[in-house]
Amino acid sequence: MAAGDRHSRSDTSLPPASLIAPPGGACGARPARCSRLVHIKNPHLDSVEEDIMYHLDMGTKTHNLPAVFGDIKFVCVGGSPNRMRAFAQFMHKELGLAGDGEDLADICAGRDCYAIYQAGPVLSVSHGMGIPSISIMLHELIKLLYHAKCQDVTIIRTGTSGGLGIKPGTVVITDAAVDSSFKPRFEQVVLYDVVVRSTELDKDLAKELLGCSKEIPDFPTLVSHTMCTYDFYEGQGRLDGALCSFSSEKKFEYLKRAYNARVRNIEMESTAFAALCRLCGLKAAVVCVALLDCLEGDQIWAPHEVLWEYQQRPQCLIAAFIRKRLGLCPPAGNKLFSMN
Amino acid sequence: MAAGDRHSRSDTSLPPASLIAPPGGACGARPARCSRLVHIKNPHLDSVEEDIMYHLDMGTKTHNLPAVFGDIKFVCVGGSPNRMRAFAQFMHKELGLAGDGEDLADICAGRDCYAIYQAGPVLSVSHGMGIPSISIMLHELIKLLYHAKCQDVTIIRTGTSGGLGIKPGTVVITDAAVDSSFKPRFEQVVLYDVVVRSTELDKDLAKELLGCSKEIPDFPTLVSHTMCTYDFYEGQGRLDGALCSFSSEKKFEYLKRAYNARVRNIEMESTAFAALCRLCGLKAAVVCVALLDCLEGDQIWAPHEVLWEYQQRPQCLIAAFIRKRLGLCPPAGNKLFSMN
Repeated sequence: MAAGDRHSRSDTSLPPASLIAPPGGACGARPARCSRLVHIKNPHLDSVEEDIMYHLDMGTKTHNLPAVFGDIKFVCVGGSPNRMRAFAQFMHKELGLAGDGEDLADICAGRDCYAIYQAGPVLSVSHGMGIPSISIMLHELIKLLYHAKCQDVTIIRTGTSGGLGIKPGTVVITDAAVDSSFKPRFEQVVLYDVVVRSTELDKDLAKELLGCSKEIPDFPTLVSHTMCTYDFYEGQGRLDGALCSFSSEKKFEYLKRAYNARVRNIEMESTAFAALCRLCGLKAAVVCVALLDCLEGDQIWAPHEVLWEYQQRPQCLIAAFIRKRLGLCPPAGNKLFSMN
Repeated sequence: MAAGDRHSRSDTSLPPASLIAPPGGACGARPARCSRLVHIKNPHLDSVEEDIMYHLDMGTKTHNLPAVFGDIKFVCVGGSPNRMRAFAQFMHKELGLAGDGEDLADICAGRDCYAIYQAGPVLSVSHGMGIPSISIMLHELIKLLYHAKCQDVTIIRTGTSGGLGIKPGTVVITDAAVDSSFKPRFEQVVLYDVVVRSTELDKDLAKELLGCSKEIPDFPTLVSHTMCTYDFYEGQGRLDGALCSFSSEKKFEYLKRAYNARVRNIEMESTAFAALCRLCGLKAAVVCVALLDCLEGDQIWAPHEVLWEYQQRPQCLIAAFIRKRLGLCPPAGNKLFSMN
């Protein structure tokens, strides 16, 4: 990122989004009833005739975005397109929508970059791996929600991660995403500067998710910091990449420092996700399962079926949360929901 | 990347790979005949019983890697799984292999991270978008080629890019990948340090590819620098993201500086690709087509069919190069090969 050549500055030009009262509404006493619009922070878009979201294969002239997406209240994002299709199908059943949900279509299949599925008020979106990949998707998703005039949107990143001093299968709800120096910040190169942005996540949302997890039997969950890196191998202190120039001792010293800084899991998207959502008025959470404990080793040995079951856990928690928000009872006999 | 908190150092611990003579061979006078093995630079892997390449869904105990991949001579990598399947099918026909190639199977479909297709001595691999995504794939691909005992492998990244002062549709062969400060380097966080690696690409290979391009009619091609960024919107000076805090004037000032530093196109993977391949003994090239001229605007207006035709160009050039290397004539009537 060549930060050494650049000036570093806090992102004062783009203040965190505040609550916006709906037209004609007064909401001082009951902030929970305020409508919260999705923001963009880009004056140039005011004068644009057509806004094309290239990687999502959508545009303001070719798509009636308010009609299609105006009622979206929950957006769930995760790395893999297949997993996000499965999540949309799962939500379709959980919400008791008509049909079996098996034939849900990818809304942006035309571009072959990301996948988007809709199940009622829930959008399920893939973002690939790493900060650059999720950033492209988020810029365009946020513009989509903005053009669609969506209100009160909650966005949750779900995924897998490496645990730190926790049992494989544990679900970590992130309170702050930290960088590889264990600081809650995201550094973004903007022309000649490195802009530093906050990566704090919504505390009330994290608490609400933790509350939901307690209602699921045998569901190990905690709230803590998540470290986000630009690299899976050298960047996370792994000894099993094609390149490795450090000792096992140095690796464990680094990971223990991370643990002492309250990091309990490591992944590759959360800082950019937290920073972008915060700036654009989206209440955001990160819910990831740990596939292994990085303090015990690097390689993921668990068999496919165990890993598959682990990967369902964050999705089950998010489904329980959405159902609760919508005042729905859990559907009978849904195997994915039960951890037993 | 939090480089400001860290020590920056050149990567002296991992010197560039040198030519290795095959056992019993002497190759002082004719370096082109030396066998060049794929390297890994990781002493820890010597003592590992089984090496699992998690994201590729392969391992040294579960797969006979020398038998399956030992004859691979060319690896072509690109962002989209569908595009890399199409490229493998195209190469299947170009090389005159048996069958129509329509049923080529994704070798690592089990993990849903990347896609790998094989067409004779050619491997076609997807890498997603951005440096972190291509880095994971490259670490594991390089280990795969190493375990398979591959020799004399040429690797080429093919993709799309934003042009800088060049006509849309122009193919850029990269001589050096530069970062957002226009320097030929890749900065990698390794525990507490920022390690700086060279991103020079193989000059002879670039020349050879340029030579092949001249044999294709109406095929605009040039050799120059490619800028690699961590972000598509603010990181490339775009005015059409969800966030933008700079003026149009500042944007053009930045892009013109890039142009004056010999940058002719911008993408999001080349620095990591160049650095990793260089360190591991792979002769590497980057061949990308420009979809637009960033000095003319941000949004990609060209219709699908025009963009589709542009995207074929790097693949056509690479196919011509591989055929030439293998001493094959161009197949008759292959529409993809002709630009007319």
